[in-house]
Amino acid sequence: MVEFMDYGGVLEKIHTAIQPTLGRGKVADYIPELASVSPRHFGMAVVTVRGEVHAIGDASTDFSIQSISKLFALVLALKAEGEALWTRVGREPSGTPFNSLVQLEHEAGRPRNPFINAGALVVTDILCTRFAVPENALSEFLQKLAGTADVHYNRRVERSERSHSDRNAAMAHFMRSFGNLRNPVPQVLDAYCRHCAIEMNCIELATAVSFLANHGRISATGEQVLDASLAKRLSALMLTCGTYDSAGDFAFRVGLPAKSGVGGGIVAVIPGECGICVWSPGLDDSGNSHSGTLALELLTTFTGRSIF
Amino acid sequence: MVEFMDYGGVLEKIHTAIQPTLGRGKVADYIPELASVSPRHFGMAVVTVRGEVHAIGDASTDFSIQSISKLFALVLALKAEGEALWTRVGREPSGTPFNSLVQLEHEAGRPRNPFINAGALVVTDILCTRFAVPENALSEFLQKLAGTADVHYNRRVERSERSHSDRNAAMAHFMRSFGNLRNPVPQVLDAYCRHCAIEMNCIELATAVSFLANHGRISATGEQVLDASLAKRLSALMLTCGTYDSAGDFAFRVGLPAKSGVGGGIVAVIPGECGICVWSPGLDDSGNSHSGTLALELLTTFTGRSIF
Amino acid sequence: MVEFMDYGGVLEKIHTAIQPTLGRGKVADYIPELASVSPRHFGMAVVTVRGEVHAIGDASTDFSIQSISKLFALVLALKAEGEALWTRVGREPSGTPFNSLVQLEHEAGRPRNPFINAGALVVTDILCTRFAVPENALSEFLQKLAGTADVHYNRRVERSERSHSDRNAAMAHFMRSFGNLRNPVPQVLDAYCRHCAIEMNCIELATAVSFLANHGRISATGEQVLDASLAKRLSALMLTCGTYDSAGDFAFRVGLPAKSGVGGGIVAVIPGECGICVWSPGLDDSGNSHSGTLALELLTTFTGRSIF
Amino acid sequence: MVEFMDYGGVLEKIHTAIQPTLGRGKVADYIPELASVSPRHFGMAVVTVRGEVHAIGDASTDFSIQSISKLFALVLALKAEGEALWTRVGREPSGTPFNSLVQLEHEAGRPRNPFINAGALVVTDILCTRFAVPENALSEFLQKLAGTADVHYNRRVERSERSHSDRNAAMAHFMRSFGNLRNPVPQVLDAYCRHCAIEMNCIELATAVSFLANHGRISATGEQVLDASLAKRLSALMLTCGTYDSAGDFAFRVGLPAKSGVGGGIVAVIPGECGICVWSPGLDDSGNSHSGTLALELLTTFTGRSIF
Repeated sequence: MVEFMDYGGVLEKIHTAIQPTLGRGKVADYIPELASVSPRHFGMAVVTVRGEVHAIGDASTDFSIQSISKLFALVLALKAEGEALWTRVGREPSGTPFNSLVQLEHEAGRPRNPFINAGALVVTDILCTRFAVPENALSEFLQKLAGTADVHYNRRVERSERSHSDRNAAMAHFMRSFGNLRNPVPQVLDAYCRHCAIEMNCIELATAVSFLANHGRISATGEQVLDASLAKRLSALMLTCGTYDSAGDFAFRVGLPAKSGVGGGIVAVIPGECGICVWSPGLDDSGNSHSGTLALELLTTFTGRSIF
Repeated sequence: MVEFMDYGGVLEKIHTAIQPTLGRGKVADYIPELASVSPRHFGMAVVTVRGEVHAIGDASTDFSIQSISKLFALVLALKAEGEALWTRVGREPSGTPFNSLVQLEHEAGRPRNPFINAGALVVTDILCTRFAVPENALSEFLQKLAGTADVHYNRRVERSERSHSDRNAAMAHFMRSFGNLRNPVPQVLDAYCRHCAIEMNCIELATAVSFLANHGRISATGEQVLDASLAKRLSALMLTCGTYDSAGDFAFRVGLPAKSGVGGGIVAVIPGECGICVWSPGLDDSGNSHSGTLALELLTTFTGRSIF
Repeated sequence: MVEFMDYGGVLEKIHTAIQPTLGRGKVADYIPELASVSPRHFGMAVVTVRGEVHAIGDASTDFSIQSISKLFALVLALKAEGEALWTRVGREPSGTPFNSLVQLEHEAGRPRNPFINAGALVVTDILCTRFAVPENALSEFLQKLAGTADVHYNRRVERSERSHSDRNAAMAHFMRSFGNLRNPVPQVLDAYCRHCAIEMNCIELATAVSFLANHGRISATGEQVLDASLAKRLSALMLTCGTYDSAGDFAFRVGLPAKSGVGGGIVAVIPGECGICVWSPGLDDSGNSHSGTLALELLTTFTGRSIF
Repeated sequence: MVEFMDYGGVLEKIHTAIQPTLGRGKVADYIPELASVSPRHFGMAVVTVRGEVHAIGDASTDFSIQSISKLFALVLALKAEGEALWTRVGREPSGTPFNSLVQLEHEAGRPRNPFINAGALVVTDILCTRFAVPENALSEFLQKLAGTADVHYNRRVERSERSHSDRNAAMAHFMRSFGNLRNPVPQVLDAYCRHCAIEMNCIELATAVSFLANHGRISATGEQVLDASLAKRLSALMLTCGTYDSAGDFAFRVGLPAKSGVGGGIVAVIPGECGICVWSPGLDDSGNSHSGTLALELLTTFTGRSIF
């Protein structure tokens, strides 16, 4: 249905165009493991639904996936819990930066969506209920999606995250006071911090996310991860909620469903066509990769392949 | 690029499926002119980028377009003011129901997006600066887009809106206290209320919005209203901000860029393919047409034509 | 019941002690008439319930009473409306600086107390209903309380206030949308701005407020303005709500019921003993007179006469 | 300085007048130990600065002091930490019910005052730093103030409080994320919950609080607990912040510095004269004892001894 697109050539054009911007933005610095990463890294990969892999720059270098894990944790929780999950977490953009506690208060402990921290804590709570060792369940799931055995946790990142988790602990206890967290807070925080500490590279992540572009099916194995309708709907959720408080602006500029992390990675999807991952650690004010966002904007400009 | 789709047949299937839901929801009742409309009306029209018109039910019956006018007012203001408009109004979902004043306070008088009332007041203020009679400019613009001379204001609706405009007056004065409104508040409110009081039917509105699906060009005349890139970007804005506080849920269920009004109308776009308008006056809790939203969800289900 | 206190001597000690602080703080500058007043003015007067007048410094110089008018407008409205007034305005501290709109939104248009702008607008609305010309009613009432014919409005201040009233207009329209304002917004704003533009001096204001220290009775004439119980209760309201967002701190430091204005005036009461007025235009961050607050703190320190 | 007052007779008049109201209000029910207390209890005690004790009803029955402990914990922390304590906690009324998290967010983790839960957690954190076993320090301090060895913790109440402490845990972690909590959250919560679980009776509490009426000095022993100025200032803080979100209304009606608890107790002070404690478990909407507040209002009405 879609005409041939030379993604290899497109990636080279992007790589050239993006050079002057490398180093812009600010690397996340709340934990030393993220603060010490060079902001000049740049990698990008496109994996089509037919399994073709295109990559450039540091696309094979592992990085901390951070909040990108929220997307895959959600998929795993949806498979386990079904649509009942939505009684405990909403599907609306959060709108306001930094004040999820305010929203939780107004909305009786039900987070706005599964991509903000509060929502991801509820998703993690569901995984804690459904799986004996939720972190293992998630890493095995990612290995299947990415078609690789190389999905690992960085223990030092995990410990750093855990020692800086007071704000997440506050939200977890707060939701627990509303009955929207079932497992002990420390257990949920342990799993949550481990999820954030997963390390993967652009090629693996582009592969892992490509099932959303492929009607919910893993190209390599044909396994149906989600039904086609739910795969579409998750893409919609990524568009409206996937890039922190600048989802509107991101949709305006890039026009693709995406999920970002403060490690500088962004996964995105062109429905029916490909999964994408870009990585560059310098962040803009909203916490999205500065050069990564620009690279995705160039991708839709060069290819005309935005969803709009 | 897109295979043939039998929209006439699809509309008939939708019309049949929607029957049991007619009358559900609650007609807007803050002014008598809206309160007296029967909730059982249903009309729907699809106008393709090649100019084919498909219509069913009450698609030729005029209704009060209300907030749908915000979309066309924005296009007109963007043509007059250019991208400088975004310094005065944002592009992010508002997130929180009913509390635009809170947001205005936190964000120093700059509304979240042009589709909430506060943002539309700023857009109207720009039109008041740029045009001698902004209401005439908007109706002439709509006549051009819809290819009809039959775009009129309902004077009684306009007067009713004006006599219930204390909350909008509050927001207008508040933004003025931040310097983000340039014309006298009563003048801006007069124009704003007149815009809301425009009456059109589904066929006219589907025609009017179809330029957004056609790379910014009016099919009938070939006139380029907006460049293709900006047309895409406006569609993105409709997806993230066009349906009040349930934009996330609407995207999840329907998956199309859309703008709704409390008169029960919703305009939507399938990029590259068609403009759509559906009308049914019963509203859900978020202020979107209950049966209209369902009809659009059925449209994407029956055709597989969501953007995701 | 109270032993003799040499207020003349106390005022002299305060005057000496306060000298090094004169000029500190920041004169209100949102209108030119206030911005042009020298911050080095200082006047203070004590008028006992037996009618003795003690004064020092610029105690005979007129200044803009601004929000001090809210106290007397409330007394006048209470006399006209009775305790039914409290159904439309609360008696609790507002707690949060600058965000009365947020509170109004949460509390359905009922202001926290009559000393914040929103509450004073409701009080003014009551005066607009009860009196043909509310500003005249207030000035006549003040003339009676102060025992002087010299209570006048500064027309230039009034016009400046009116041209800077967008934020008050926002609150007025907002309350009107909740049905808590009965008269047209422009009429209420006109009266409100005129009240703020009243000019009096320290001796007149100390005399005017002294009835609250005298069981609700004007010493000079014996007229009972309010019953003794209500006079006490108004003093309690001044303590908890009279000094903007630093009422807690003011009570902690000074320990007297008081009402301040951004013109730099503060009226206060020692129950059973005297009315007090101090004036010095330099304001602290909360909008209370810097040297005036310090002078009152010294008064309670030197006399031991706080209420605690 | 104060004429003779027959407090015994006054208490009898109050006891008679209060009878029809007993049982009104709602007993706190978030833990079973409070929910099972009869709402018909009523006790009241007045202890003058000369050591005279007047008591009526259930004045010798122990009850759970709950938030009244916040007053004594603050005094103990002030003695240990001095005025530096105010850098970590404010002195302003909180204004808004139930949303201390919102305020904490706006004010960077510094609670409004030491009588709301967030503020009391900071005070407890200070005690955890200053004392090896903070609960013992507090009970010993209360024994000294009350002149009794009978100050004990109810272990079942303590455990129940601890198992319902998610909201307090949320606030504690949140303040810790701002650096305003120094000890581990579980340790602070343990101490906090034990403070709330102290049991005393009206006579003991009226005795314990009477030093605030006596220029900071314990009548029986002459020990100066706080200097006279700070004792006055704490009374001011009780007036503006001591009775949850109805401090303004309480001051308006009662006119005395007070601190209440959800166990139904209220301690109050008539400066220069006496400490008071009243207990009746039925609570009004703000969490203050319904009949207890009424009894205090009658006390100031019958004696004319409000501070205003």
